[in-house]
Amino acid sequence: MAALRSLIHDRGLVQVIATHSPLSAILAEEAGFDALWASGFELSAYLGLADVSLVTMTQHLEMTRAVAARSALPVVADIDTGFGNAVNVVHAIREYERAGAACVVIEDKVFPKVTSLVDGGRQDLLRIEEFQGKIEAACASRQSEAFLIVARVEALIAGLGQEEALKRAAAYVEAGADMILIHSKQKTPEEIEAFIAAWNGAVPLVLVPTAYPEMTVERVRASGKVGMVIWGNHTVRAAVTAIQGVYRRILADGGIHEVNKDIVSVAEIFRLQDMDRVKDIERRFLK
Amino acid sequence: MAALRSLIHDRGLVQVIATHSPLSAILAEEAGFDALWASGFELSAYLGLADVSLVTMTQHLEMTRAVAARSALPVVADIDTGFGNAVNVVHAIREYERAGAACVVIEDKVFPKVTSLVDGGRQDLLRIEEFQGKIEAACASRQSEAFLIVARVEALIAGLGQEEALKRAAAYVEAGADMILIHSKQKTPEEIEAFIAAWNGAVPLVLVPTAYPEMTVERVRASGKVGMVIWGNHTVRAAVTAIQGVYRRILADGGIHEVNKDIVSVAEIFRLQDMDRVKDIERRFLK
Amino acid sequence: MAALRSLIHDRGLVQVIATHSPLSAILAEEAGFDALWASGFELSAYLGLADVSLVTMTQHLEMTRAVAARSALPVVADIDTGFGNAVNVVHAIREYERAGAACVVIEDKVFPKVTSLVDGGRQDLLRIEEFQGKIEAACASRQSEAFLIVARVEALIAGLGQEEALKRAAAYVEAGADMILIHSKQKTPEEIEAFIAAWNGAVPLVLVPTAYPEMTVERVRASGKVGMVIWGNHTVRAAVTAIQGVYRRILADGGIHEVNKDIVSVAEIFRLQDMDRVKDIERRFLK
Amino acid sequence: MAALRSLIHDRGLVQVIATHSPLSAILAEEAGFDALWASGFELSAYLGLADVSLVTMTQHLEMTRAVAARSALPVVADIDTGFGNAVNVVHAIREYERAGAACVVIEDKVFPKVTSLVDGGRQDLLRIEEFQGKIEAACASRQSEAFLIVARVEALIAGLGQEEALKRAAAYVEAGADMILIHSKQKTPEEIEAFIAAWNGAVPLVLVPTAYPEMTVERVRASGKVGMVIWGNHTVRAAVTAIQGVYRRILADGGIHEVNKDIVSVAEIFRLQDMDRVKDIERRFLK
Repeated sequence: MAALRSLIHDRGLVQVIATHSPLSAILAEEAGFDALWASGFELSAYLGLADVSLVTMTQHLEMTRAVAARSALPVVADIDTGFGNAVNVVHAIREYERAGAACVVIEDKVFPKVTSLVDGGRQDLLRIEEFQGKIEAACASRQSEAFLIVARVEALIAGLGQEEALKRAAAYVEAGADMILIHSKQKTPEEIEAFIAAWNGAVPLVLVPTAYPEMTVERVRASGKVGMVIWGNHTVRAAVTAIQGVYRRILADGGIHEVNKDIVSVAEIFRLQDMDRVKDIERRFLK
Repeated sequence: MAALRSLIHDRGLVQVIATHSPLSAILAEEAGFDALWASGFELSAYLGLADVSLVTMTQHLEMTRAVAARSALPVVADIDTGFGNAVNVVHAIREYERAGAACVVIEDKVFPKVTSLVDGGRQDLLRIEEFQGKIEAACASRQSEAFLIVARVEALIAGLGQEEALKRAAAYVEAGADMILIHSKQKTPEEIEAFIAAWNGAVPLVLVPTAYPEMTVERVRASGKVGMVIWGNHTVRAAVTAIQGVYRRILADGGIHEVNKDIVSVAEIFRLQDMDRVKDIERRFLK
Repeated sequence: MAALRSLIHDRGLVQVIATHSPLSAILAEEAGFDALWASGFELSAYLGLADVSLVTMTQHLEMTRAVAARSALPVVADIDTGFGNAVNVVHAIREYERAGAACVVIEDKVFPKVTSLVDGGRQDLLRIEEFQGKIEAACASRQSEAFLIVARVEALIAGLGQEEALKRAAAYVEAGADMILIHSKQKTPEEIEAFIAAWNGAVPLVLVPTAYPEMTVERVRASGKVGMVIWGNHTVRAAVTAIQGVYRRILADGGIHEVNKDIVSVAEIFRLQDMDRVKDIERRFLK
Repeated sequence: MAALRSLIHDRGLVQVIATHSPLSAILAEEAGFDALWASGFELSAYLGLADVSLVTMTQHLEMTRAVAARSALPVVADIDTGFGNAVNVVHAIREYERAGAACVVIEDKVFPKVTSLVDGGRQDLLRIEEFQGKIEAACASRQSEAFLIVARVEALIAGLGQEEALKRAAAYVEAGADMILIHSKQKTPEEIEAFIAAWNGAVPLVLVPTAYPEMTVERVRASGKVGMVIWGNHTVRAAVTAIQGVYRRILADGGIHEVNKDIVSVAEIFRLQDMDRVKDIERRFLK
């Protein structure tokens, strides 16, 4: 596990890409991202389920562990609401830290949650004190201070405004949060930039600019207060786009003779699976 | 579970597409494929592992079960060598039938196997009698005759020639196989077409034309002896192609503002996750 | 899956024993119990976790599925609160029915719950209307009417008295519950018997007499209104008792020479594992 | 993870008890054993399966990980044949070390194996060179030298005699094994004691005296060459004995009123589940 805190310190801003599998983790590391977002939304989609607390901690933990085992990048685990109350959080922290995650993000919504960006979704927040208790429980339960606890503020998502968002963010820092993830569903960066401008907190911010894609790295960096930017669902969206296209073409073409030229070769998959290492093991140890 | 046998009977040839997740199964059903190939190669790749009997029956079975639960298409399960000997096969048949698969494919390689298409891979075949025992064990263990047992012949992959391939195929039909999957790694369809021409067996053939993509549906259908054609790894190859591209662009562009236009929207993922159904359940039952 | 409803009809009262593993399911079937209780409490204990909604649906479902696969007895699945709200319940019903359970029991506590019998435990109940919505959602989601939905009333556990308990039970029957499980932590059967006496509902009751062991089968049967009695945690308690004793003796004796005489032989374990069937498969199919 | 090597060094002989669950691990630690045997035989029995390579690495690994997470004792993982060839062994070593095991035991039988003590079971051994390759692969793959690799010699089980057993043991030490587990199914300790007497190897031996229970700790210690004695299946045998008895009595007694007095209380299970810790977390963090 790379030290995420020092990575943020050294680079100013780290770019974190969504993953839902060891394969996409391998691709992310090759591409040059700084860290991985073990995304609940992506895993839900991959399992054909809505992102409304149906995917269990077991399923998400197993994915996180597999990703951490196959990649040298630090893994930021999206643990939603912490799977229940403060008791569940204590259990989750113990398990995710053992699984090799470098960081968890816990959001201040009520369990079961509804995914943040859907139109007309129920967005119920916990009382501030109750969520502070969860953050305190998380901090008290970790084995290592290097395991980061990020509090995710959903006040803007819930339509409660900047004041409530700032109040919650401050309360969560007081409870021990190492960073604040502030989420917005506005189509442009203004709401988030207003929050950043108003933020005087002692800890860095985290952004997930899915809804407002004009928030570039340069623009994020200019704020000087953001430690991580998470590209939160572009892996599964890229995969769906490509799979839909290839499926359509195979059926339209009456075969794979055309698409075959436009997708990576089987040899490229072998490379990603490290077949060379298998051959090397066979050569050395299969007697 | 749709009845795969009658589907083959009615359509003459069914097109089966590789899947490694409920999400790709949903996309395959929407696109119009006839059936799903719960692929060991794709699952291995997804898990960042080489396709050399590292992925366990538990992992593959769980994927198969999840796919069968989220799709109305029949699922053809790729169970490699059956995870060991005839005793393992009996166990596997019981579990895959319970999991909702419509069909299993068992190959005549020695466990642990090496993936078929890799250059210079070890390709050790079982003795014919031993594999016949596995096919007999599979047939004797199924609860329903509608659950199909396909024997996969790797003789051409192992470089043993047409005669050996035909001899094995006949022996496996004698042992009870419902279909014969004949595999080839030649770059063109000639080797497979020679096998098909020589095949007088009482059961339909199955092809996986990965290596020889010029084998179109039309050309397969013309042979009159093939019941299923499996597009065996194009889902994961499509996904890798797209993810590599999107990752490269995000880092080069310094953000998601460009790629965002070229991938499906978050709303499209919500549609695939059936968020409308969640809203409907909330409306009716959340009181 | 045996038809649990007709079993209750035919026998008047069915005896259901707690299980947390296929092994104990096999023993229960051999002993002559009518059905199995896939117990959340036992599974939590087995996993070394408190019974406070830490064990996930994935873990409990997997145990339920394994038990259903290894036993011909109907399985009554203890799904606690349904793992969240009505949306979670719909998901759970689909999964447990597919897994081969014959029945689920859902309790009217708030998620995350605290185990019922612990001294001084938090026992928060849902609003009646909200729990009715969960029962309605469960009934609307099942594939087969033979899959029974039992509503578990925790009003006596929460100290809210008979009137509240009866009111809730009636409301849950109105919502569609096939049976009512009424739970009590009194040390004697009087509280439960008062409930039974007052019960005029159209559906049978279910009891879990852990706290009041004097409630014998004869006494339950005399009431004429109880369809199932669940012995809810005696499997894990029996196992712990024996394991503690054997561990103490091995260390005290300086070996296994003494305990060896007082525990079943390895051959008995082979019998339970059906090693004879393995030998038979090898004889017939290992060539 | 306690350092198993130094434990053996300090105590001369460590006593290792079979476990198949976090619960039995907790009981073993309370009783005072030195280490845990994450037993394939016990897990197979628990899952209602014969011990013939049906339980997958995923299932055994998950149990091992759960046990390691709930206990401070070092865990010795029984990984049978290593789940295939040297390539599988490399994969297994990486996974078991990450899961928190302190040690693995690999046996020199052919995959799929048959359990060692069953009458008339097939007991096929690997060629010596091939098993040496597996041991070398295991040693080369571990991250830490503190993770011990034990080679299990099945030559006596296979009826091949002392000479073959000694030859194999020496060859496996040459390949890098940290200890040799020598197994016997003789009803008395003579065969094993003859092996011990003849053993001049540089590494300690490991015994599993299931078949010859007269091999007490004192007698093992007297040999001066044994580092670990494993009580290999007494946990599941104790559990089965007790569960059979309690089941029989409940049905005979017509209730739990009698057995209730002879098994541990529900409160004792709460203690083992650490309900006090839950209450403490609620008190401190549930606001």
